[in-house]
Amino acid sequence: MFIDKLIAGIRKFDNPTVAGLDPKLEYIPASIREKAFSECGKGFAGAAEAIIWFNKRLIDALCDIVPAVKPQLAYYEMYGVEGIRAFTETCRYAKLRGMMVIADAKRNDIGSTAQAYSAAYLGKTEIAGEKFAACDADALTVNPYLGIDGVKPFIEECSASGKGIFVLVKTSNKSSGQIQDLITQDGKHIYEKVAELVDEWSTAAVGKSGYSSIGAVVGATYPEQAGVLRKIMKRSYFLVPGYGAQGGTAKDAVSAFNEDGLGAVINASRSIMCAWRSDHWSQSYDEESFDQAAREEALRMKEDIRRALESKKDKND
Amino acid sequence: MFIDKLIAGIRKFDNPTVAGLDPKLEYIPASIREKAFSECGKGFAGAAEAIIWFNKRLIDALCDIVPAVKPQLAYYEMYGVEGIRAFTETCRYAKLRGMMVIADAKRNDIGSTAQAYSAAYLGKTEIAGEKFAACDADALTVNPYLGIDGVKPFIEECSASGKGIFVLVKTSNKSSGQIQDLITQDGKHIYEKVAELVDEWSTAAVGKSGYSSIGAVVGATYPEQAGVLRKIMKRSYFLVPGYGAQGGTAKDAVSAFNEDGLGAVINASRSIMCAWRSDHWSQSYDEESFDQAAREEALRMKEDIRRALESKKDKND
Repeated sequence: MFIDKLIAGIRKFDNPTVAGLDPKLEYIPASIREKAFSECGKGFAGAAEAIIWFNKRLIDALCDIVPAVKPQLAYYEMYGVEGIRAFTETCRYAKLRGMMVIADAKRNDIGSTAQAYSAAYLGKTEIAGEKFAACDADALTVNPYLGIDGVKPFIEECSASGKGIFVLVKTSNKSSGQIQDLITQDGKHIYEKVAELVDEWSTAAVGKSGYSSIGAVVGATYPEQAGVLRKIMKRSYFLVPGYGAQGGTAKDAVSAFNEDGLGAVINASRSIMCAWRSDHWSQSYDEESFDQAAREEALRMKEDIRRALESKKDKND
Repeated sequence: MFIDKLIAGIRKFDNPTVAGLDPKLEYIPASIREKAFSECGKGFAGAAEAIIWFNKRLIDALCDIVPAVKPQLAYYEMYGVEGIRAFTETCRYAKLRGMMVIADAKRNDIGSTAQAYSAAYLGKTEIAGEKFAACDADALTVNPYLGIDGVKPFIEECSASGKGIFVLVKTSNKSSGQIQDLITQDGKHIYEKVAELVDEWSTAAVGKSGYSSIGAVVGATYPEQAGVLRKIMKRSYFLVPGYGAQGGTAKDAVSAFNEDGLGAVINASRSIMCAWRSDHWSQSYDEESFDQAAREEALRMKEDIRRALESKKDKND
């Protein structure tokens, strides 16, 4: 079951975080880019090769301290077929090194099509009586705008084969309130109404931990709302974007946790991938050691979250 | 400008419809599948090859009667890298045969990531100072749940390079109301609130026709709501799924049109792709002539919509 594996990973490394792999080319050290371009050309193939090398070294540097990676599909799809090759290879390598993979694709469609997306990312595709996995991620992010029809195929895969989803509830971006904060006639925000649905759906895949593999995306940039949502979706794990580069602090992020210190996993992408060129780490690491800078930043983040969780606990005690 | 090109295509063929290309393997005649499997193996490569052959023959049979195709990404992503190859090749071939391409991907994310999706489907990706198009579709479907941040990069591409988007407003599936029909404190449904946003956004890319390249997805299965939405989004073209296999009739679908006979384009996927095995056409066409059955069905649909539009006009006169 996805959620129990995730919690085991979080406990093993004492680290409720996930590393986003959104490899813009500008994040990749010039030496890696140049090598890839000289071997595979200055086109999609070269870009994909650079991304694969970059991601693999990040995975090597993070796999014994961070339980999961979260590749963001957009940054692979922009390189076409070659980009999907880089995505697939990244997922394969992360799993090989023992990391869980959360595919951040925010997929959504009507039932029959959601079924195809579920096969693409979580399940298998049947071809002439045999089944093949295109990606085999552990979990996928899903957009709820179409209601249960569009989410059910993913939930069924979660129940059947122990995968997970995180449904968008309150996203981290500035304009998330434009639709998500609208207030309905019973006085509740849309994000609360969606949370009630997620809570209902979450019963379909509850693990031994008591948490469900049907989780929610709740941005670190909205700590107050996270507190409210924490009470509505009791069984759901929160995937929390918006920490670091987007402006969410550790104190903000820990609003998503329960008092047991569980219930959320915090994502950071840019701050880890680009640590080598940040003011904080660029004194200690040159671009060749981008992976060590990423590791240091991941450890700093872990410590940052740990302290915020302790301070929250002290306050509640 | 996307919308003017689309309207020109609709006028040229006197046909406000689009053919969905959602090629489930079971939709493809066994002879094509077997040939592809024997040449490329019974795996992703063979499946992709079958899809490419199937789609190309459909495109050949439809390109002088239907203005656009709408490939649904899910049915390609489920075959991994090879599936994306089939998708790319389908888009390329449709454009070569003069058809417009609406990529049905329902993408959505925060601004920087939406930017990457926009590059992937509508714009270009910069690599070492040069720009490459991964897909170069004419238009893309977009999910609005994240608000303007997540839509703006697509709108900017529409303004800058004459592409188009269709924003999900009221989807055709049964449970679409679970979130979209919630009523806000000012008495409006969420789909109306989203429509108001789309109307605001639509000013950014208005063509010579007076219509905008920022359109909306409104299901044929909800004709009453389509009528309401038609009044809110005056400048927006509606992409209308749900006709045919999903239960929407021509009479339902024409609620999305304006009195000038413009304003909407109706999609059919399954009924066209699977015409060869339908009760209606399987008497006249064997599986080898699946493309001619698709053409007949597309012509029947055109006539069905035309009659419904005339009957609507007579009623209004």
